[in-house]
Amino acid sequence: MMPSTLADELKNRRAENVKILCQLLSIPSVSADPQCADSLHQAAATLSELFQIAGTGWSCEVMPTAGYPIVWARYRAPGNRRRAIVYGHYDVQPADPLDLWTTPPFKPTLRDGKIYARGATDDKGQMLTHILSALAWMKTKGQLPIDLDYIIEGEEEVGSENLERFLAEHRDELKADVAVISDTSQYAPGWPAITTGLRGIFACEVRVHGPRKDLHSGVFGGAIPNPIRELTRLLSLLHNEHNEVQVPGFYTDVVPLTDADRAGFAELPFDQAAFLAETGAIGLRGEAGFTPLEQRWARPTLEFNGIYGGYTGPGPKTIVPASATAKITCRLVANQNPDVLMKSLEEFLRSHLHPSCRLEFTADHGCPAFLMDRQSPFLQAASKAIEAGFGKAPVFIREGGSIPVVATFKRLLEIDTLLLGWGQNTDNLHSPDEHFLIEDFHRGTLASAILWEELANV
Amino acid sequence: MMPSTLADELKNRRAENVKILCQLLSIPSVSADPQCADSLHQAAATLSELFQIAGTGWSCEVMPTAGYPIVWARYRAPGNRRRAIVYGHYDVQPADPLDLWTTPPFKPTLRDGKIYARGATDDKGQMLTHILSALAWMKTKGQLPIDLDYIIEGEEEVGSENLERFLAEHRDELKADVAVISDTSQYAPGWPAITTGLRGIFACEVRVHGPRKDLHSGVFGGAIPNPIRELTRLLSLLHNEHNEVQVPGFYTDVVPLTDADRAGFAELPFDQAAFLAETGAIGLRGEAGFTPLEQRWARPTLEFNGIYGGYTGPGPKTIVPASATAKITCRLVANQNPDVLMKSLEEFLRSHLHPSCRLEFTADHGCPAFLMDRQSPFLQAASKAIEAGFGKAPVFIREGGSIPVVATFKRLLEIDTLLLGWGQNTDNLHSPDEHFLIEDFHRGTLASAILWEELANV
Repeated sequence: MMPSTLADELKNRRAENVKILCQLLSIPSVSADPQCADSLHQAAATLSELFQIAGTGWSCEVMPTAGYPIVWARYRAPGNRRRAIVYGHYDVQPADPLDLWTTPPFKPTLRDGKIYARGATDDKGQMLTHILSALAWMKTKGQLPIDLDYIIEGEEEVGSENLERFLAEHRDELKADVAVISDTSQYAPGWPAITTGLRGIFACEVRVHGPRKDLHSGVFGGAIPNPIRELTRLLSLLHNEHNEVQVPGFYTDVVPLTDADRAGFAELPFDQAAFLAETGAIGLRGEAGFTPLEQRWARPTLEFNGIYGGYTGPGPKTIVPASATAKITCRLVANQNPDVLMKSLEEFLRSHLHPSCRLEFTADHGCPAFLMDRQSPFLQAASKAIEAGFGKAPVFIREGGSIPVVATFKRLLEIDTLLLGWGQNTDNLHSPDEHFLIEDFHRGTLASAILWEELANV
Repeated sequence: MMPSTLADELKNRRAENVKILCQLLSIPSVSADPQCADSLHQAAATLSELFQIAGTGWSCEVMPTAGYPIVWARYRAPGNRRRAIVYGHYDVQPADPLDLWTTPPFKPTLRDGKIYARGATDDKGQMLTHILSALAWMKTKGQLPIDLDYIIEGEEEVGSENLERFLAEHRDELKADVAVISDTSQYAPGWPAITTGLRGIFACEVRVHGPRKDLHSGVFGGAIPNPIRELTRLLSLLHNEHNEVQVPGFYTDVVPLTDADRAGFAELPFDQAAFLAETGAIGLRGEAGFTPLEQRWARPTLEFNGIYGGYTGPGPKTIVPASATAKITCRLVANQNPDVLMKSLEEFLRSHLHPSCRLEFTADHGCPAFLMDRQSPFLQAASKAIEAGFGKAPVFIREGGSIPVVATFKRLLEIDTLLLGWGQNTDNLHSPDEHFLIEDFHRGTLASAILWEELANV
């Protein structure tokens, strides 16, 4: 456990820590907006200054990239056995629509125990807890029990285009035991959580060609192949009535849910009526034999993201269209290979194609899923730290989306990532009135401070 | 048969008739272009002047409408037993792209035995034959054997918005035995034809709703219904592998092709390789058991004209879309009821809809098919006139598209329409370098002159 002086120190520094957070939140570092370029650099500089005051053993460089710089802070102390990488990002989503904000997005405001600002949780507030926890260690102990590398980028909200090259270039210097990211959420208020799994993904586009150009449906219709018909027919073959994907081998490599996984998910509160109300759907439609949480966290999907072909303006137009196109993404779970499955999907579609049509298949990016070993000692260490910081043991949840950097850490650095979410799903990430519960901010900082010792003791 | 003086008169008037045609073709009466408004009125006035010179028994009014006027010329003679309505239009399609014309579209030019100009066949040239034939009768005989009503509108190329009201208002004055329209084509060079059938149509739009707005496919995908999946699944149920429409009752009222119909179609030259090359399709896909001509002329279809939903921009976007929409038209054949079938289609889709989705069905216009009785004496009369004018008996063909005025004549005036095409499919209707074979123009005028007597004798 953490020396009590550290807990006291964090308690004493609460006002000061909120002030630092507000300073960072007042910088409009919107990476999508070229007019905010100066603010991005200012945010990086502000972080760098924080690390400058940390003291002995610390170094910090603002590393230029082809885009916005990466803040790379390092802590090294003789005798430390473990090293962790902390990833975060100082850029934020655009703030519009501005008129839906109660107070201006870049004037951080405390209200009802929450701090309101763009980036409050995503990710300035959450990321900052891991810096403030280290500063508390330095202030009270003059040292940390673990070596740390902070990698804080400024392009997460626009695709992290320059991060992978940076990691690849510095791969040898970034040897570590584990990575830590706080850019997810708790499961629900009062349900602190560790996200132990992320789904992977692959994306592709399928186009069916019929005639060379749109034809008069009166003159030609009835004899000439209609590519919308063929596309919709092909797409209809991809699921059965149990909502199972029909691509051969789609489920072959899926790691089955363990009894412990399913029992853990089943204990989580899930309000189906609220879920439907939130989405506006009038019913659920998921793979038979699995609960909605299992379907979204631990089962692969094949999803149609877009479709278009022929005439799409108002009213009717009597044509046999030249082509029709569908955009497809598959969400993958642990052990599934995006490249292999993308190929299987293409072969399945080609094998069922009517000979009167041509098919064009365009493969896009793929990214494998992430699943942390439930027996990992680092996971146990993080669990203890959260229990101490939040007063309740975390639940192990998953996310249905992807966080590409987690796959990159696994692939390039061969380390797992602890996804420790301090915020709530309801914090309005990417929406007006984004906020962060001040109490979650302080709890997260305390949990982070304890984490350094727990990880050091693994 | 026609008195030989009439044939001689037409031979003598060839140059004069071409001159009249050129005068009409030099007027840029593009109804789609508001800047051409004066030319539209000028075209109507030019036609009106032609009728003024016809002589005893004739009257002509340029009838104002909410849009461009309708030229209504009448011929009445005591003792005539029969009356025909001649429909045509003096407006033309836009001429662009202008740079693809060999000679300017409104400077009629004779080249290789053809007259090149916008409107040469569609419809000024073909329509004019029926006026010139009557003038020849007046010149040589001082009378016509049949009463005539010419209804020549100026809005055919923009939807004939004011025609139906005009016909309804003058319904009682427009009692006739049969209508005559020359706004179709011969089957092929050397194959004069009468179009005895047109397909009908109905149009609708089908929208499937899933969630209220686009959702993150990682967070929600797997549990929330995907409307593109549901729409494509529903659409895939509409045809079977024999390309037969699966809507209950879709074929119930179809008048079967007779052996004579099929034998007649089978005699027509049809080059499948040329047909595929023209359309750019790599294969045919039509209802099993029917030839391509039968499929296009005499069988109903269900065609997808457009589809859209979700993200349709470049690259992938990971959403479960809120909705997906398809545009559908059905081509109908004789005896099918557009309203009944539209309702059947809606019921079929609703009965197969998955309960997790909502379906929105928007009905658009419908128009029944037209099929002329092969035993009609008017058809026999027209056949004789064409044989005399073109030197070869016409074949009976059909068209896969609709000509709404034909359905209107049937519904309002309870008369059939003789569709007598003098031009060729290859005359570049609606395209640059539209033309009309001068010989077809003269043959058509002769056939028309003979037609008046043949119809009078029915």
